[in-house]
Amino acid sequence: MEQAGSSLIDFDKGGGVIPVVTQDYTSGRLLMVAYMNREAFEETARTGRACYFSRSRNRLWRKGEESGNHQTVREMRLDCDADTILLRVDQHGDQAACHEGFESCFFRVYDGGEWRTVDTRKVDPAKYGAAYGHHKPAA
Amino acid sequence: MEQAGSSLIDFDKGGGVIPVVTQDYTSGRLLMVAYMNREAFEETARTGRACYFSRSRNRLWRKGEESGNHQTVREMRLDCDADTILLRVDQHGDQAACHEGFESCFFRVYDGGEWRTVDTRKVDPAKYGAAYGHHKPAA
Repeated sequence: MEQAGSSLIDFDKGGGVIPVVTQDYTSGRLLMVAYMNREAFEETARTGRACYFSRSRNRLWRKGEESGNHQTVREMRLDCDADTILLRVDQHGDQAACHEGFESCFFRVYDGGEWRTVDTRKVDPAKYGAAYGHHKPAA
Repeated sequence: MEQAGSSLIDFDKGGGVIPVVTQDYTSGRLLMVAYMNREAFEETARTGRACYFSRSRNRLWRKGEESGNHQTVREMRLDCDADTILLRVDQHGDQAACHEGFESCFFRVYDGGEWRTVDTRKVDPAKYGAAYGHHKPAA
């Protein structure tokens, strides 16, 4: 079922996907940046749960499907160029949006020419199983 | 002059550019999403002023160069995949990060299948001149 609001979004510019910025509704903390294709957007709009498109796995990625760290959408916004979405969400599960077990993917700060990890890991992602995450396992 | 922190960033994945999310340091409001190439990142790191790469104009875009709405960087963060940057900034000038004159590019909310403008324009962008903005003039 097509959502009316989907037709305004310019998916063509990015070859079928658009960037999606996800922010914690309560704290305003930037949690992650991911991508959606039209199907992911429409599922998110319909269900109220964040569904992205995984470029590395080339399929819909229902956030939390492995970890339980799902996100319920409190508000969706669209930018001026209609090619970027903002999701304002409640983060569930272990409160770790990042596949490395941090609350936010942005856990490193630029400091004197280097990137320094300043956040504390919320959870060891190993608890979600060996196949967890969107990276290929190390060789 | 190469910045040490630049080498860690994966510019290749996006064909030489990475998405950059810009957030108001004080309010936490998401202001805009733009792109940087390596040169834009290095200039931003060196000067403390947000410099992006305009994909439509194919050149460095020193934010505020036309409008005076420049941004000073309070903090830069890098995500887990090293392919997205977060800038936490002070927005100057007319407090309008968006080229349409809004504080934030994300001035439309999804509401019942439609995108509804919920923010109030801060400034009429016509004041910056007829050539202002990253869109081609209407034919």
